[in-house]
Amino acid sequence: MSIFSKYEGLSRSLSTVTAEGGRNPFDVVIERPISSTVGLIEGRETLLFGTNNYLGLSQSPAAIEAAVEAARKYGVGTTGSRIANGTQGLHRQLEARLAAFFRRRHCMVFSTGYQANLGTISALAGKDDYLLLDADSHASIYDGSRLGHAQVIRFRHNDADDLRKRLRRLDGTPGAKLIVVEGIYSMMGDVVPMAEFAQVKRETGAWLLADEAHSVGVMGEHGRGVAEADGVEDDIDFVVGTFSKSLGTVGGYCVSNHDGLNLIRLCSRPYMFTASLPPEVIAATMAALDELENRPELRHQLMDNARRLHAGLNAAGLRTGPQASPVVSVILDDVEQAVAFWNRLLDLGVYVNLSLPPATPDQHPLLRTSVMATHTPEQVDQAVSVFAAVAGELGINRAPVSA
Amino acid sequence: MSIFSKYEGLSRSLSTVTAEGGRNPFDVVIERPISSTVGLIEGRETLLFGTNNYLGLSQSPAAIEAAVEAARKYGVGTTGSRIANGTQGLHRQLEARLAAFFRRRHCMVFSTGYQANLGTISALAGKDDYLLLDADSHASIYDGSRLGHAQVIRFRHNDADDLRKRLRRLDGTPGAKLIVVEGIYSMMGDVVPMAEFAQVKRETGAWLLADEAHSVGVMGEHGRGVAEADGVEDDIDFVVGTFSKSLGTVGGYCVSNHDGLNLIRLCSRPYMFTASLPPEVIAATMAALDELENRPELRHQLMDNARRLHAGLNAAGLRTGPQASPVVSVILDDVEQAVAFWNRLLDLGVYVNLSLPPATPDQHPLLRTSVMATHTPEQVDQAVSVFAAVAGELGINRAPVSA
Repeated sequence: MSIFSKYEGLSRSLSTVTAEGGRNPFDVVIERPISSTVGLIEGRETLLFGTNNYLGLSQSPAAIEAAVEAARKYGVGTTGSRIANGTQGLHRQLEARLAAFFRRRHCMVFSTGYQANLGTISALAGKDDYLLLDADSHASIYDGSRLGHAQVIRFRHNDADDLRKRLRRLDGTPGAKLIVVEGIYSMMGDVVPMAEFAQVKRETGAWLLADEAHSVGVMGEHGRGVAEADGVEDDIDFVVGTFSKSLGTVGGYCVSNHDGLNLIRLCSRPYMFTASLPPEVIAATMAALDELENRPELRHQLMDNARRLHAGLNAAGLRTGPQASPVVSVILDDVEQAVAFWNRLLDLGVYVNLSLPPATPDQHPLLRTSVMATHTPEQVDQAVSVFAAVAGELGINRAPVSA
Repeated sequence: MSIFSKYEGLSRSLSTVTAEGGRNPFDVVIERPISSTVGLIEGRETLLFGTNNYLGLSQSPAAIEAAVEAARKYGVGTTGSRIANGTQGLHRQLEARLAAFFRRRHCMVFSTGYQANLGTISALAGKDDYLLLDADSHASIYDGSRLGHAQVIRFRHNDADDLRKRLRRLDGTPGAKLIVVEGIYSMMGDVVPMAEFAQVKRETGAWLLADEAHSVGVMGEHGRGVAEADGVEDDIDFVVGTFSKSLGTVGGYCVSNHDGLNLIRLCSRPYMFTASLPPEVIAATMAALDELENRPELRHQLMDNARRLHAGLNAAGLRTGPQASPVVSVILDDVEQAVAFWNRLLDLGVYVNLSLPPATPDQHPLLRTSVMATHTPEQVDQAVSVFAAVAGELGINRAPVSA
């Protein structure tokens, strides 16, 4: 028997999906980025509306030159773990910079955002502890819970009352209770009601970890995320984040005021048993953090674009999530339609992400669309008009929703 | 109760370790690398004998210039997963280059070597399958087995007979059997008897995955690792490796001739739910791969240095593993002695890794020492003489072992 026979179903599903347009939607190649908002795909200049490059900083000249300088000065890798030969001065500088940005005492930098969640969640919640996870949590949060040994309890998505009920059932049990929420959920772009979760945390004495991967640089007056926007930063014990969204590079981090965070460096396997980030990635990230801090207009442009896209898609009769956020997903009813829609968008020069059940909330296929600060209003309007044209072709416009 | 109270024991152990010399051996900062073999630590130029930079390629001028060019041309990040917007032309090129280097049909590139093991092992061995792991496997292999759902069976380190016995007990059970071995084990530098494991694989119909992280670029006429050196590459179903050792950057990969590998792209969570490597890391890795292929003299210099270090340490009356390999560990008897030894080495300008039980085989503390192709014979001799001096100070020389 082949070791792959368990994936025959997957193989058939993929055949169905690729039959629609010949393309594999999960194997798109951006031959090269032309700017933060335009990439070369299938030899054509294509509008990018499916990245997490919210501030456009992957193409920041300052970040690029910082990478160039660091590569020349320090080389292209450390070849070691943070606990061995993999901590260079630059890693410490970035940790200090992030701690200062978040106004926290401690910061750990991880090699990917995925490993930041794996490494903090698996180490913080031990075998006698409880992990309380939002049902729509990102895969890295679920994988972190699987790698650790805590008992996992899921609560209804964004429902602080449901969490409160579940925590009350644990009254009197020993062991720490760690709540994990995300700032912005990546599939639908919906925002956590952070103040409500902070209230539950205060009532119950639980610990609260906020994964602000999609909200740092996006929300809050200074870009510190939803907790800042909601004025509840003091209630967040641990903020986890990533460099591969608004900061435009790769890597992840956890910041906290708890001195114990530094103990995690000695027991978090996804931190200890992996090579640290190369100098040029660290340097580019620091330069991007400067821009995130010093150019608040990027956040305003981003949210203007988000509102423009959300309103435009709704006006075109498409169904989206309730909120204008940097992620605006168009909700469709069946997979065949979604695949056809996605293919036509790409034919017409607009790249978005296709997300299919079971990976999506409520089992609806999604055209996951995201905006950047660097999109021009004209680019947003162009994307909306292509969406409208394809919806027309496929006969799936609905009556425009009146706000 | 604090969420950190479970780590009070760890905190006490750390206090004991740091008491010896005031330093935390797991928090060493290389302020900056001066060359591949010398780094600035505590303001002093220090000989680096504790990296995985076996060919010195983290400082390769060609790799550095490739990174510079890619950062300027493509930016400093993709901000997306390989299955969304994170596959650029460069990622495909590197996959094709690695496949050609290993003479295999397929290659997947992951964002870290840790995630390469996590992603292949958790996806290849499903819930009805069996994973047969060497007892001394790297943390990333154990974590991959924990993330997946297969039944895990451990066999004695490097003992193909023990594996054979355990596989025979599974005769007639449904489900695939996946054997995982490493080329060179990172703690002691000992080499797997790959031909023996290949024989067991052929006898039993099991699948064989070889993690050649520490052996690619090091062993085999063309640097393809232990399987090449032993002439059994055809028996290896999957080779997993890393960019953060002989290639000097960061990232990981899996190569295989099995077409099914491409299905793994759609179900391996550590591949799907993480941002892909930035362009400059990919470009530097390709340039380093060129050097690994075109400069076989690097491998010869490396092995010359390994033999020189191994012989020198043994002649100084220190106990090491049996083989001269790029990792030469000095085995000590008690932790206090190991910590004092490590501190004195650093005082005298030699950086090595301190490895303490329970992370070490047989519960012995180790001074894990590694060499590079770029070490001069004089640097190796200098390290040996510092080791000998410290051993003398601490009164732990043994009678030289006669080979």
